[in-house]
Amino acid sequence: MSVLVCVTGRNNDKLLAELSAQLPNVKIYEWPHCENLAEIEFVLAWKAPESLWDQLPNLKVVQSYGAGVDAIDLNLIPEHVQVTRIVDTQLAEDMAEYVLAHTLAHKLRIKEYLIKQQQGQWKPKRAHSTQHVGILGMGELGLSVANKLTNNNFRVSGWSRSEKQIEHICHFHGDAQLSDFLKELDVLVCLLPLTAQTEEILNLDLFKLLPNNSLLINVARGKHLNESDLLTALEQDEIAAAVLDVFTEEPLPKSHAFWSHPKITITPHCAALTQLKTVCEQIADNVKAQQANTQLSNLVCKQKGY
Amino acid sequence: MSVLVCVTGRNNDKLLAELSAQLPNVKIYEWPHCENLAEIEFVLAWKAPESLWDQLPNLKVVQSYGAGVDAIDLNLIPEHVQVTRIVDTQLAEDMAEYVLAHTLAHKLRIKEYLIKQQQGQWKPKRAHSTQHVGILGMGELGLSVANKLTNNNFRVSGWSRSEKQIEHICHFHGDAQLSDFLKELDVLVCLLPLTAQTEEILNLDLFKLLPNNSLLINVARGKHLNESDLLTALEQDEIAAAVLDVFTEEPLPKSHAFWSHPKITITPHCAALTQLKTVCEQIADNVKAQQANTQLSNLVCKQKGY
Ligand SMILES: NC(=O)c1ccc[n+]([C@@H]2O[C@H](COP(=O)([O-])OP(=O)(O)OC[C@H]3O[C@@H](n4cnc5c(N)ncnc54)[C@H](OP(=O)(O)O)[C@@H]3O)[C@@H](O)[C@H]2O)c1
Ligand SMILES: NC(=O)c1ccc[n+]([C@@H]2O[C@H](COP(=O)([O-])OP(=O)(O)OC[C@H]3O[C@@H](n4cnc5c(N)ncnc54)[C@H](OP(=O)(O)O)[C@@H]3O)[C@@H](O)[C@H]2O)c1
Repeated sequence: MSVLVCVTGRNNDKLLAELSAQLPNVKIYEWPHCENLAEIEFVLAWKAPESLWDQLPNLKVVQSYGAGVDAIDLNLIPEHVQVTRIVDTQLAEDMAEYVLAHTLAHKLRIKEYLIKQQQGQWKPKRAHSTQHVGILGMGELGLSVANKLTNNNFRVSGWSRSEKQIEHICHFHGDAQLSDFLKELDVLVCLLPLTAQTEEILNLDLFKLLPNNSLLINVARGKHLNESDLLTALEQDEIAAAVLDVFTEEPLPKSHAFWSHPKITITPHCAALTQLKTVCEQIADNVKAQQANTQLSNLVCKQKGY
Repeated sequence: MSVLVCVTGRNNDKLLAELSAQLPNVKIYEWPHCENLAEIEFVLAWKAPESLWDQLPNLKVVQSYGAGVDAIDLNLIPEHVQVTRIVDTQLAEDMAEYVLAHTLAHKLRIKEYLIKQQQGQWKPKRAHSTQHVGILGMGELGLSVANKLTNNNFRVSGWSRSEKQIEHICHFHGDAQLSDFLKELDVLVCLLPLTAQTEEILNLDLFKLLPNNSLLINVARGKHLNESDLLTALEQDEIAAAVLDVFTEEPLPKSHAFWSHPKITITPHCAALTQLKTVCEQIADNVKAQQANTQLSNLVCKQKGY
C-alpha cells in the first residue's frame, strides 16, 4: 500500500522526512507527484483539491492533517472510505493552558494594566469577578479545558449535541438548552468543530443571550464567528471583550477592523500547535493499522461531520 | 481597654466604621485624636510616627495593618509588647492566581502578541518552554503560590531561612544554597518579608546567577529590588524580563525608567488586595483575644523581623 500526502499551501519537506523515517517500508508520494494513483490507499489531506477524490480508485483511508476535518469536504469522500483526524494529548493540554491563561489575564486585567503602563498611569483596581466559564463543544479539547478550569476553582458549564454526565460540570445539550447555558456566563469559550450546524453560531442573537460583561474566547475555527456581528455586539455592549485565535481569513488581513479594536485581543492561531513528531507517530500508527487491517484511531463520523 | 488606629496617609472612615461595628463595646480612637494615651493597650498601625511608641505606657499589642510588618520599626517596640500581622487566606489565593496568571502570560507570550497586534503583525510562535519556577520565601503566600503552580504542572523550587520538607517541591534554605536554587529557574518569584537581610536581595549579583532567559516576578516589597541593577541586568541580558507589582516609591513616579521599558511589566500594587471586612474580623479577634488574655493570632517574631 502507498500513502499520498496532499497537504496544500505549505512546504512539506519536514513532514515527508519524518513520515518516511517512521514508515521505512511504505512508499510515500507528495501530491501531485504520483504517477499511478491506483496505488494509493491512504491519503493524508489538508485542503486537498476537490477533484482528487475521484481519481483514487483504491482509497481506503483519509487522514486529516489536523484536529478538525473542516478542510475536507466529507460529501466527496466515498461511503466505504474511513476518515480519521489528529488527537494529540499535548494539543489538549496546550489548549487548556491557553484558555486558562486568557481567562486569568481577563480576570486580573493584564491587558488593561499594560495599556495603562503605556500611558504612564497608576490605577489599581480590584480584579474582575470572573467565575463562571461556559464551553461550547465538550469533545477532546473542551473536556481538557473544563478540567483545567475546575481545577483552578472556576465554575464550568458545558454544551454539546448529546446529553452527558460530567463530574463538577453543569452540562447542557442541544439547541433547546443553549440559551439557559449562556445566560449566566462570565466567559464563553468556543471549541466546536466547524460543521453546517455550527458555522456562525457566534452571532448577534447569541451575544444578546450572554451577560453584558462577558468575554468571548474563540479558539475553534474563524467561521464559527460572524465577524461583523462581533463588532456590533461590542459596540452595543452586548458583551465586553473577545479573545480570538482563529479568523475567517488567516493571516488576518492588514486592513481588518479587529487589529485596532480596543476590546479585541488577537493571537495568531497559536493556541495549540501540533508537534510534527507526535502527529507523524499517530499518522504512522494509522497507516500500520490499515496495513494490518486493525481498528484505526480517532475515526470521524461522516454523518455528524466531526 | 482601648484601641488606637494609627494608619497614616489615607482616609480611615470605612476602617473605623467596620471596626466599631465589630467591636461595639471597645473604645476606638484615631490618632492623633486621643487625649489619654495611657488608656491605649492595642494599636493598629501602618507607618505610625516613630515618636508614638514612647507615649503609650500601657501598650500590649501592636497589630500591623498589612501582611508585612515592614511599615513598623520593630526596634522601637518595647520587649514585652506583642506584634501581629494580617494573614488572609483570600490574600494567599489571590497572590497565587496573580503569579500563575503572569507566569502563563509570559509562557504564552500574551504581552508579545499584544504589541504585535498594535503593530498589525501576525507572527505565530511556539510558547516559551517555561517550566521551573523558584519562590524566594516559602511563608503563607509563597506556599500558596507553590501549590497553585505544582497543581498546574509547573516544577517548583522554594527558598527560605529554615530547612523544610514540602511535598512536590525542591526546597533550599539559607544563603549557602541560594545559588543552587537559582541556577536552573525559568521564573523567580519574590515573596520574602522585607527585613535588613532581604532588602535589595534582588540585585545584579543575584541576576547573574539566574539563567539568561528567566523572568523575575516581584510581588513582595519594592525595596527587595535594586531598581537600577534590574535595568542593568535587562540591558546586559542577564535576565529576560520582569513583572513588578511593588516599587521603592508608590505610585511609581511619572519619570521612572520602568514605565516605558519594553521588558518590564508594571501592575499597580494590586496582586493581593485586602478585603476590609475580613481584615477587620481578624483585628477584632485579636482585640478580643487580648481582652480575654488568650493567644493572639499571626504573631510576628520580633527577633527575626517577620
Ligand atoms: N486554535 C487552535 O490552535 C486549534 C487547535 C486544534 C483544534 N482546534 C479546533 O478545536 C475544535 C474542537 O476540537 P475537538 O478535537 O475538541 O473536537 P471533538 O472532539 O470532535 O468535539 C466536538 C464537540 O462539539 C460538540 N458538537 C459538535 N456539533 C455540535 C452541535 N451542532 N451542537 C452542539 N454541540 C456540537 C460535540 O458534541 P457531542 O459530544 O455530543 O458529539 C463534541 O462535544 C475544532 O473546531 C478544531 O478545529 C483549534
Ligand atoms: N503585592 C502585594 O499585593 C502583597 C500583598 C500581601 C503581602 N505582600 C508581601 O508578600 C511577602 C510575603 O508575605 P508572607 O505573608 O508570605 O510572609 P511570611 O509568612 O512571613 O513568610 C516569609 C518567608 O520568607 C522566608 N524568609 C524570611 N527571611 C528570610 C531570609 N533572610 N532568608 C531566606 N528566607 C527568608 C521565611 O523563611 P522561614 O520559613 O524559614 O521562616 C518564610 O518562608 C511580604 O513581603 C508581604 O509584604 C505583598
